[in-house]
Amino acid sequence: VDSLVPIDPVLLRSIEIVAILIGAFSGFAEAQRKQMDLVGLDTVAFITAFGGGTLRDILLDRRPLFWVEHQEYALLVFSLSLVALPVLKWLQKIISEWMIVLADAIGLGLFSVAATALAIQLGYSGFISIMMGVITGVFGGVMRDIICNEVPMILRDGKPYAVCAFFGCAVYVGALMLGVKSSTGLWLGMTLVTLSRISAWRYEWKLKEPWRSDDR
Amino acid sequence: VDSLVPIDPVLLRSIEIVAILIGAFSGFAEAQRKQMDLVGLDTVAFITAFGGGTLRDILLDRRPLFWVEHQEYALLVFSLSLVALPVLKWLQKIISEWMIVLADAIGLGLFSVAATALAIQLGYSGFISIMMGVITGVFGGVMRDIICNEVPMILRDGKPYAVCAFFGCAVYVGALMLGVKSSTGLWLGMTLVTLSRISAWRYEWKLKEPWRSDDR
Amino acid sequence: VDSLVPIDPVLLRSIEIVAILIGAFSGFAEAQRKQMDLVGLDTVAFITAFGGGTLRDILLDRRPLFWVEHQEYALLVFSLSLVALPVLKWLQKIISEWMIVLADAIGLGLFSVAATALAIQLGYSGFISIMMGVITGVFGGVMRDIICNEVPMILRDGKPYAVCAFFGCAVYVGALMLGVKSSTGLWLGMTLVTLSRISAWRYEWKLKEPWRSDDR
Repeated sequence: VDSLVPIDPVLLRSIEIVAILIGAFSGFAEAQRKQMDLVGLDTVAFITAFGGGTLRDILLDRRPLFWVEHQEYALLVFSLSLVALPVLKWLQKIISEWMIVLADAIGLGLFSVAATALAIQLGYSGFISIMMGVITGVFGGVMRDIICNEVPMILRDGKPYAVCAFFGCAVYVGALMLGVKSSTGLWLGMTLVTLSRISAWRYEWKLKEPWRSDDR
Repeated sequence: VDSLVPIDPVLLRSIEIVAILIGAFSGFAEAQRKQMDLVGLDTVAFITAFGGGTLRDILLDRRPLFWVEHQEYALLVFSLSLVALPVLKWLQKIISEWMIVLADAIGLGLFSVAATALAIQLGYSGFISIMMGVITGVFGGVMRDIICNEVPMILRDGKPYAVCAFFGCAVYVGALMLGVKSSTGLWLGMTLVTLSRISAWRYEWKLKEPWRSDDR
Repeated sequence: VDSLVPIDPVLLRSIEIVAILIGAFSGFAEAQRKQMDLVGLDTVAFITAFGGGTLRDILLDRRPLFWVEHQEYALLVFSLSLVALPVLKWLQKIISEWMIVLADAIGLGLFSVAATALAIQLGYSGFISIMMGVITGVFGGVMRDIICNEVPMILRDGKPYAVCAFFGCAVYVGALMLGVKSSTGLWLGMTLVTLSRISAWRYEWKLKEPWRSDDR
C-alpha cells in the first residue's frame, strides 16, 4: 500500500505508528473496562489495531497481511501490552481527549483513503473501492466491540465516523474521475476525512437518528 | 454461480434481488430494535444480505466476492438504507408475514443449493458441498445477530431453517449421485428447500429440543 | 500439516481426533448452557473444533481448509451432534475433569506447534509463526464464546492457556534458530505446551491481572 501514498516515508511511518497505537490503546481501554486479563488485553489491542486492515486484505485476497508485512508494528503492540497498565495511566495524565481524536482522525484518513487507492489500483470499481476504504477504517473498532460483547459503538452513537471515511474516500474517487492526479487526490481525500472527523467531534455533529422521532 | 443455475436470467435476477432485499430488511429491522444510527443500519443490512455469500467465497477462496461481482446489489442495499425508515413503515403496511417467509424461503433455496452446486463444480465432496450450501444460506442471519449482540436466532429458536437448507442441498447431491442431470437436481433441491421451509413455518414444525427434557 | 509432524501417523490421527472431540464437546456444553437447539449445538461444536484451524488457513491463504481436507473429522462432529445429549450425559459419568484437561492440553500442543511449523515452512518469520500457532490453538474457543454471546473465557479468566501455547511455539522457533532439528523442536515445543498447561491447571497458576490492584 505504501508505495501508493505520496508522503515522505518517515512521515508515513510515523502516522501509521501513531494510528496503530491509538487503535491498540482503545483496545486496552476497552479490555480494562471488561476486566480482562493480560491475554485479553493483548488480543483486543491487536484486533482493534489490525482488524480493519486484515479484513481488507482477506476481502481483496492480498497476502502477506498488513501486520505480517509490517511485523514491527505487531511486535510493538505485543510489547506494549506487557506494560499497558502503567503506560495507560501515564498517558491518561499527559494526553487529553483532543490529542486522541486528532491522531485517530489522521489515522482514519490515512488508512481508509489508502485502502481505496489500493482497491482502485487492483481494478475494483469506484463504489467497491470506497466500501473497502470504509471497512478498513472502521472494522477494527467493530471487531473490538464484538469481542468485548458490546453492540459496536460506531453503529449506534450517531457520531459521524464511518461517514467521514466514506466522504473522503468518495472525494478521492471523484477526483480521479475528474482526471486529478492520484497523489493529489490522496492528499485531498485524507485531509477531508481528517478535517470532517475533527469538525464532527468539535461541533458535536450528529447523524440524523432515524428511529428517534419514532420513540416519542 | 449464475451460469450453473438453469433458470431464465431475468427470473434469476428477480429472485436474487428479492432475497437480498429480504435479508437487508431483516437487518434494518434488527438495527432498529437496537436503536442503531444510519451507519449501523446500513452495516447490519449489508452483513445480513451479503454475509453468507461472502463467507462462502472466502472459504472457497473465490474472488471477486459476490457483492463485488454484483455491485448493483450492493448499491441497491446502500441506497435503500438511506430511506429505510419510511420504506420500512410503508412495507409494514402492505406486506404480511407470509410474504416475507415465502420470499425468504425462495431465496434460501436459491442461494443454498446454488452454493452447493458451485462447490461440487469446484471439485469438493458431497458432504463439504452441502455444508457450503447451508453456510451460505444461513450465516448472513448469524452474523447479523452477532453484530447486534444476540445469540443467533437460528441456533436457538428450534424452528427448522438451516435444516431445510441442509435437506434440499443433500437431495441435490443425492440426485447427482443417482445420475440426475445437474439442472434437474437444482430445481428439485431448490424446490424442496423452499417447500420444507414454508411447511415448517405453516405447520409450526419444531426441532427436537435436546435440552428441554433436562430442565424439568 | 501432517507431513511436518514427526509422529507415528496412527498416533497423530488419534491425538487429532481426541483434540477435535474435546473441542466439539466444549461447544456442545456451551450450547446446552445457552439452551440452543440441535442446529445451534452442531454449529457451535463445529466452530469450536475447527474455528482456529480455519482462521489459520484463511490468514495463511491455504486451501483446502483443514476440515475440508479431513472431512472425516467434520463428519464425525456432525454425526456426534445428532446424539450429543445422551453421549454428553454418559461422558459426564465416566470422564473426570483431569481427563478433559489432559486431552485438551495435548491437542493444544499439537495444533499450535504444528501451525507454527507450517508457517515457518511457508517462509514466515519466527514472531509471525508463533502468532499463527497461538491463533490456531485458541481461536476456536474465542469464536465459540462470541457466537454464544459471552466475553471469551480465555481473555478474562486469568488462567494460562494462550500463554502456554505461546511459550511452546516460541521454544520451537528458538530451537530451530539454535540449529535443532525441526522434528526434535516439534516434540520439545508440543511437550512444553502440554506440560505447562497441565501444570497451570494443577497448581492453579494465575496470570498477573493488571487491573486488580486498580479496583481496590
